[in-house]
Amino acid sequence: MELLKPVKLGILGMGTVASGLINIMEFNKNKVHETIQRELIVNKVLVNSLNKKRNINLPEEVYTTDAYEVINSDADIIVELIGGINPAYEYIKAALNNKKHVVTANKALLASHGEELQLLAEKNNVKLMYEASVGGGIPILNTIRDNLSANEFEYIFGIINGTTNYILTQMTENGLDYGQAVKEAQRLGFAEADPSSDVYGDDAAYKLSILSTLAFGQRIYVKDIPKEGITKISKEDIEYAKELGYNIKLLAAGIKKGNKIELSVHPAFIPASHPLSTVKNEFNAVFLKGNAVGELMFYGKGAGSLPTGSAVLADIMHIVRNADSLTFKNESKKRSVISNKGFKQYYINMEVIDKPGVLGSIASIFGKNNVSLASVVQRQKNGNDTVPLVFITHEAERKNIDAALEETKKFEFVTELDSIIIVENFK
Amino acid sequence: MELLKPVKLGILGMGTVASGLINIMEFNKNKVHETIQRELIVNKVLVNSLNKKRNINLPEEVYTTDAYEVINSDADIIVELIGGINPAYEYIKAALNNKKHVVTANKALLASHGEELQLLAEKNNVKLMYEASVGGGIPILNTIRDNLSANEFEYIFGIINGTTNYILTQMTENGLDYGQAVKEAQRLGFAEADPSSDVYGDDAAYKLSILSTLAFGQRIYVKDIPKEGITKISKEDIEYAKELGYNIKLLAAGIKKGNKIELSVHPAFIPASHPLSTVKNEFNAVFLKGNAVGELMFYGKGAGSLPTGSAVLADIMHIVRNADSLTFKNESKKRSVISNKGFKQYYINMEVIDKPGVLGSIASIFGKNNVSLASVVQRQKNGNDTVPLVFITHEAERKNIDAALEETKKFEFVTELDSIIIVENFK
Repeated sequence: MELLKPVKLGILGMGTVASGLINIMEFNKNKVHETIQRELIVNKVLVNSLNKKRNINLPEEVYTTDAYEVINSDADIIVELIGGINPAYEYIKAALNNKKHVVTANKALLASHGEELQLLAEKNNVKLMYEASVGGGIPILNTIRDNLSANEFEYIFGIINGTTNYILTQMTENGLDYGQAVKEAQRLGFAEADPSSDVYGDDAAYKLSILSTLAFGQRIYVKDIPKEGITKISKEDIEYAKELGYNIKLLAAGIKKGNKIELSVHPAFIPASHPLSTVKNEFNAVFLKGNAVGELMFYGKGAGSLPTGSAVLADIMHIVRNADSLTFKNESKKRSVISNKGFKQYYINMEVIDKPGVLGSIASIFGKNNVSLASVVQRQKNGNDTVPLVFITHEAERKNIDAALEETKKFEFVTELDSIIIVENFK
Repeated sequence: MELLKPVKLGILGMGTVASGLINIMEFNKNKVHETIQRELIVNKVLVNSLNKKRNINLPEEVYTTDAYEVINSDADIIVELIGGINPAYEYIKAALNNKKHVVTANKALLASHGEELQLLAEKNNVKLMYEASVGGGIPILNTIRDNLSANEFEYIFGIINGTTNYILTQMTENGLDYGQAVKEAQRLGFAEADPSSDVYGDDAAYKLSILSTLAFGQRIYVKDIPKEGITKISKEDIEYAKELGYNIKLLAAGIKKGNKIELSVHPAFIPASHPLSTVKNEFNAVFLKGNAVGELMFYGKGAGSLPTGSAVLADIMHIVRNADSLTFKNESKKRSVISNKGFKQYYINMEVIDKPGVLGSIASIFGKNNVSLASVVQRQKNGNDTVPLVFITHEAERKNIDAALEETKKFEFVTELDSIIIVENFK
């Protein structure tokens, strides 16, 4: 691209994020021009239908239903915003082979083919940027690359799925049960009609794969990330969490432990005084520790038309200003990737028959398995034979917890095991 | 600088931040090399005394007591870490005129001479970088420039002075009074022997000047920022804040209001559920709103050897990778700068004689002045004729608050006005 010539964009898709991008380019036109000293022009836009009425200020002739009319146009940068693996994967490969820079927000595609696409970009001497794929408007990927590049990372904890965070916040603040909260999230557009990818942790695992690949400098695959979603979190768990001074959040965690990296997506008790506890509703945050900078948190909107559009536009501007690409993979380090097997504190909620000696029997089974109890809540329930017995353990190995729970099942007074949730103490 | 040749650094000063920088360059040597593909070499270091024993891994011959031996060496980048305006100002000018890039953490110098130094850097076609001058390790300035450059900013609220935040946190969490908390902060190295620059808000005003100059794209001078420090915050104010659901923080605020920018440094009540409320002790945070990205918060360590060294090293690496400089001034926008005169909620604490009708009389004086009360706390005090009367107003103009308070002084039952503190609702 020559200096001062306008930069031409080809956009694949015209959904929420693309319309946000076009709107920002319009209302912040002066700021953008001042920053990059170039004009941005939308050249061609792939849409599903030419007849749809759009509330977007673009001339009719930019629209096409043929992706290759965009990819083969004289655009300098192709912005892929259709999402999903196919056909986005073929489109991006074609664009890179056409020597066009690519900006994408496609987390599923990057998590599965990021390395290959990056090598293809390098081969063609063009850039592949994807800030918007993790954390929506939060500038986390480029910041890890640029401003934190003097750091080795010790851990990353992310609340990086807005849907589940909205659901858990509604359960916490308005006393909804899981089903009610999902409906409310769907009504407000924070959850899709089929929320599976969010509530079972897949979306968070895609994002953790990208985030941890950049932060730890080695390729982390989604298949190596164990996932536990939020579908089993009960109103009762939420209430006990509050009573014990915690909030329940869906955490995506990557922790460096010597030569290993421990990864997982799981619900966790977060201390109410921890900065991640104030991350509510559709907000996202990434809390990380660098070996030089110490603890940092980045907080903001994890989705939405304008926030995500802001991240896409920042990437476009980075390309124009000739910033470095993100580095998806780095072979210089190679630690083994392990699932979450470290010492953790656990919240356990079981149903027991209310009679003397029950707590003592259970506590001694746990003790025998090297698990000691940090706090216990036992409460009367009116009109029931059984009562909930809730406790938080000190740090223990999961296999010891499981062994103890197995033994307690043999007691006739233990009628049900309701929940086991990690209590995160950020160590 | 040619590709692959080592990059030579000349360092002015060998205090806390400089030793942090040298340490990070040592323990993260591989990561740094991998990122910039260049070796960083410390060429010359200005020190006060050649005889001092240093726990730093540098050869003896790099040290000099002559600043110009550093500035006139063949270093590519001069890192200024002596602080204060003189002689740092002369040294940086000389370095820029010598066509050397400059990295500095010097907030006082930038707040007073940033524009002039930036023009000098441009004239000499070198870079002036200063990420470490605001928020220590938090990558806020470069992020505003790079990743948020598609945004116009609506407001910036910062907790950007670690000393005062440490003092206020200790008062809140451990019930210390102001004097005790200052002593504790001094004992732990979070406050200097003379803490004036921190506790009266000067340090925060320097940083706000730099932060708001970058965010709002126009030069903001320290002299235009009204300051109120934390010296008058009492244990009682802290207790009422807690009781009413708030935390008291020293806020640096820049708010765009149409054609005006409202600036100030002042203590403020922050709702306990707001993310800024979890910023404790020596931590800093910047909470801002962009017109595209929405609300964002950046949280981390605002000072310290390694966090600040991490920011300095990031700037050095930016220069090597040929990133853009920060833009200290931008004449394209010119809004008038006003001090904090907008509609705000206020916390007011006064001492009154405990007799019937007092609250009613005071409330009606406020009402007459267009100030309505949002909440009132009146509590019995044992063994005293007077009782504290505490209330939070709805949004009101400060001049109306002052007029009402002036009138209430005429009542014989108002014996003292203890505090007026802004209640920040982030609108």
